[in-house]
Amino acid sequence: MNVVVWNENRHEKTNPVVSDIYPKGIHGAIADFLREDNIFVETATLDEPEHGLTDKVLSETDVLVWWGHKAHEEVKEEVVEKVHKRVLEGMGLVVLHSGHFSKIFKKLMGTTCDLKWREADEKERLWVVDPSHPITEGIGEYIELEKEEMYGEHFDIPTPDQLIFVSWFEGGEVFRSGSTYQRGKGKVFYFRPGHETYPTYYNKEVQTVIKNGVKWVNNNNTPTPVYGNAKPIEEIPEKK
Amino acid sequence: MNVVVWNENRHEKTNPVVSDIYPKGIHGAIADFLREDNIFVETATLDEPEHGLTDKVLSETDVLVWWGHKAHEEVKEEVVEKVHKRVLEGMGLVVLHSGHFSKIFKKLMGTTCDLKWREADEKERLWVVDPSHPITEGIGEYIELEKEEMYGEHFDIPTPDQLIFVSWFEGGEVFRSGSTYQRGKGKVFYFRPGHETYPTYYNKEVQTVIKNGVKWVNNNNTPTPVYGNAKPIEEIPEKK
Amino acid sequence: MNVVVWNENRHEKTNPVVSDIYPKGIHGAIADFLREDNIFVETATLDEPEHGLTDKVLSETDVLVWWGHKAHEEVKEEVVEKVHKRVLEGMGLVVLHSGHFSKIFKKLMGTTCDLKWREADEKERLWVVDPSHPITEGIGEYIELEKEEMYGEHFDIPTPDQLIFVSWFEGGEVFRSGSTYQRGKGKVFYFRPGHETYPTYYNKEVQTVIKNGVKWVNNNNTPTPVYGNAKPIEEIPEKK
Amino acid sequence: MNVVVWNENRHEKTNPVVSDIYPKGIHGAIADFLREDNIFVETATLDEPEHGLTDKVLSETDVLVWWGHKAHEEVKEEVVEKVHKRVLEGMGLVVLHSGHFSKIFKKLMGTTCDLKWREADEKERLWVVDPSHPITEGIGEYIELEKEEMYGEHFDIPTPDQLIFVSWFEGGEVFRSGSTYQRGKGKVFYFRPGHETYPTYYNKEVQTVIKNGVKWVNNNNTPTPVYGNAKPIEEIPEKK
Repeated sequence: MNVVVWNENRHEKTNPVVSDIYPKGIHGAIADFLREDNIFVETATLDEPEHGLTDKVLSETDVLVWWGHKAHEEVKEEVVEKVHKRVLEGMGLVVLHSGHFSKIFKKLMGTTCDLKWREADEKERLWVVDPSHPITEGIGEYIELEKEEMYGEHFDIPTPDQLIFVSWFEGGEVFRSGSTYQRGKGKVFYFRPGHETYPTYYNKEVQTVIKNGVKWVNNNNTPTPVYGNAKPIEEIPEKK
Repeated sequence: MNVVVWNENRHEKTNPVVSDIYPKGIHGAIADFLREDNIFVETATLDEPEHGLTDKVLSETDVLVWWGHKAHEEVKEEVVEKVHKRVLEGMGLVVLHSGHFSKIFKKLMGTTCDLKWREADEKERLWVVDPSHPITEGIGEYIELEKEEMYGEHFDIPTPDQLIFVSWFEGGEVFRSGSTYQRGKGKVFYFRPGHETYPTYYNKEVQTVIKNGVKWVNNNNTPTPVYGNAKPIEEIPEKK
Repeated sequence: MNVVVWNENRHEKTNPVVSDIYPKGIHGAIADFLREDNIFVETATLDEPEHGLTDKVLSETDVLVWWGHKAHEEVKEEVVEKVHKRVLEGMGLVVLHSGHFSKIFKKLMGTTCDLKWREADEKERLWVVDPSHPITEGIGEYIELEKEEMYGEHFDIPTPDQLIFVSWFEGGEVFRSGSTYQRGKGKVFYFRPGHETYPTYYNKEVQTVIKNGVKWVNNNNTPTPVYGNAKPIEEIPEKK
Repeated sequence: MNVVVWNENRHEKTNPVVSDIYPKGIHGAIADFLREDNIFVETATLDEPEHGLTDKVLSETDVLVWWGHKAHEEVKEEVVEKVHKRVLEGMGLVVLHSGHFSKIFKKLMGTTCDLKWREADEKERLWVVDPSHPITEGIGEYIELEKEEMYGEHFDIPTPDQLIFVSWFEGGEVFRSGSTYQRGKGKVFYFRPGHETYPTYYNKEVQTVIKNGVKWVNNNNTPTPVYGNAKPIEEIPEKK
């Protein structure tokens, strides 16, 4: 399995709080713990040519992990189109935290993906609401994060195919914080936590969920549909 | 539309806190506000013959509302079987609060319907997660109840067909508190609030949701499937 | 309820087979039978200024019905954006037949919406797979159309929220031919039949389904979510 | 992974057509091809003590495969209860063909699980409608079976969590022939083909689907929910 962790990598360059927490960048931190499971991982960032997502890279990627926040608009439409096409062809996609507002996630969802938010060092509890789902393997009934940014409903997404986590926040909000979607041959997993000013991606349970998510969205050899004009009726035995 | 509000009606007989809040019983309170919408409503209770759910009553009922708590085990299997059959035939069912543990709800769900609970006068906020659903007509982004019993995940139900409300509780839990299910020709709506020691069923927004739910589960003249041995292949034109 | 039936209206201008079947256009035929139910209906077509979908028209429309086929590319992006916004705000959308490839449907779905097709005068049977759904009111177990264009799986759509009809075709294919989706406050119903060279929209059961669909997608006064920065934590009582 | 293939094993004893096709019983044929993937497989049948499903066997079983047809009523309630409990605890369940009418499947579904059927040597095509699902790995766009029993809609099941296959039959019917359900910690996969008088379980693509299904329902170490009275509010830091 070839995984690419994509990160906007801008907060890390301008905000010392973020670069202190993530000296190798958010992408570096995520790549590090994925590699613990012997997954082959590369990284790509916004400021690389073609955002690091060349045709070659995309064609060889099984799973793409996406973190973006303040520079969604700088992601080129043509790269978004290519990533979209690859997801429909079967490339898995894991979208993290503020990636909810990325062009690729909005394009796959068909909605605004808007939500409520507040930065107030609130406690978050991510409750498992589907304890049969492999994405929850190895964690407990809930994950507790002492401080996180709040994301609150309504989250303007289509009804998820599978809802796995629902978050509770100290200030009175809830959020559908782990959800999956099928798009073409591709599988998509959205996972909420990971504001850049908190060390969330060092949390072992968060890491477990992301590892599980990467494995879950990986698609091995499912059928490739054929579209378009079907064979003439004269060649269909049933019609004779 | 003929609605029957069924209530166990036991707390009302033994606990003055409950009978003070609901002098006409929980069923009486619910029937009262449903009648405001010119819905024809009757009530039925556990201690009536056949629990008030005779063949005649059931055959004429379009929507059944169910509240039960401490006497689920006293509901006769044969009545449960009849209600189950009527739901599959198209009778709507609205299950309230502790009705999650009723025989009829468990039979329709196929799971234990178990959950966490705590009686501690906690604030509850029911957030709307599907603002397109007619059950949310006329309410705001969330319903706030100053004091309620807590119900927490995991709620052992099948994945709902539609998830409409998610509750936040002061003590740190969340709950899928409004959900729908299709069973045969019947529609089922589960709605969480309504512990017997709180005046929840006088809350106008709670009333609006229950009114909406009753209308939503009401089934008018959808097709009746035919089951069993299909007509012989010789009579199928396509096969000739 | 204000309904607008939108039609590309091109086949009608160039193909006498089509204009003979639909002398008032496909939009005219659909508008006619919707009016039988005392629904207020107007029509709009591609060649009108702004495709007949001005800001004023859209703002006053509760439900939009969409038929397009060979000129999807001529629909202006800015009109698509406006329709998309209105759906998320709560305008219902009924997409018919070859409208599966319209810009608005693809944008709402996030997928290619591709499929197999064949024009061979095949028999179609649309089987009801959800006999609890109000869209099936008044019809039988299946709708049979003597001759229709074939649409076959795989249909590249997201998993529908509700799957109502599955079509059988003489030549060996099946198709998810009636499906619903929630997007923001809006409800979407896709219904397969209606190739321009067949008199499908005169079929009484097809008309019943479209009437039911128009009523089902109509949204009355559900909550309007608030997005963005939530109130400061200092003003949240729970946090104090 | 420990798999038990359960079979009623009655047709094999009385009908030479069946015993000629399946000399080792349907269970034997299924066990044989599962073992090709180095899965540890045992079998159990109706006429063994406790139907071969003792407490010890059930407690050690990760995935149970179920085939039954004419003797569903002979399966003891207490065994059904134990299997049900194990599914909710996380044991995977694959239900095949006429197992749709088994006590365990009906109990898990909450519906009659009724359907249409016809024995007329009809061609069946199982079309993949979710090409992202791991259960479809290694097969083509559809599986074609030259002769099978027909099962037709309406199939009285709850809306599946995931719909993977839809069957086309020569005589004019369709059927949701591959579907999944979450129940507690358990995953359930229903797969239609396999009438006892056809050599369906020797079909390589059918075998691939069943192998995939067995792997897909196997649950490894997802969280075990805690139910009941939650800790007192005084011990909840948020409430102080």
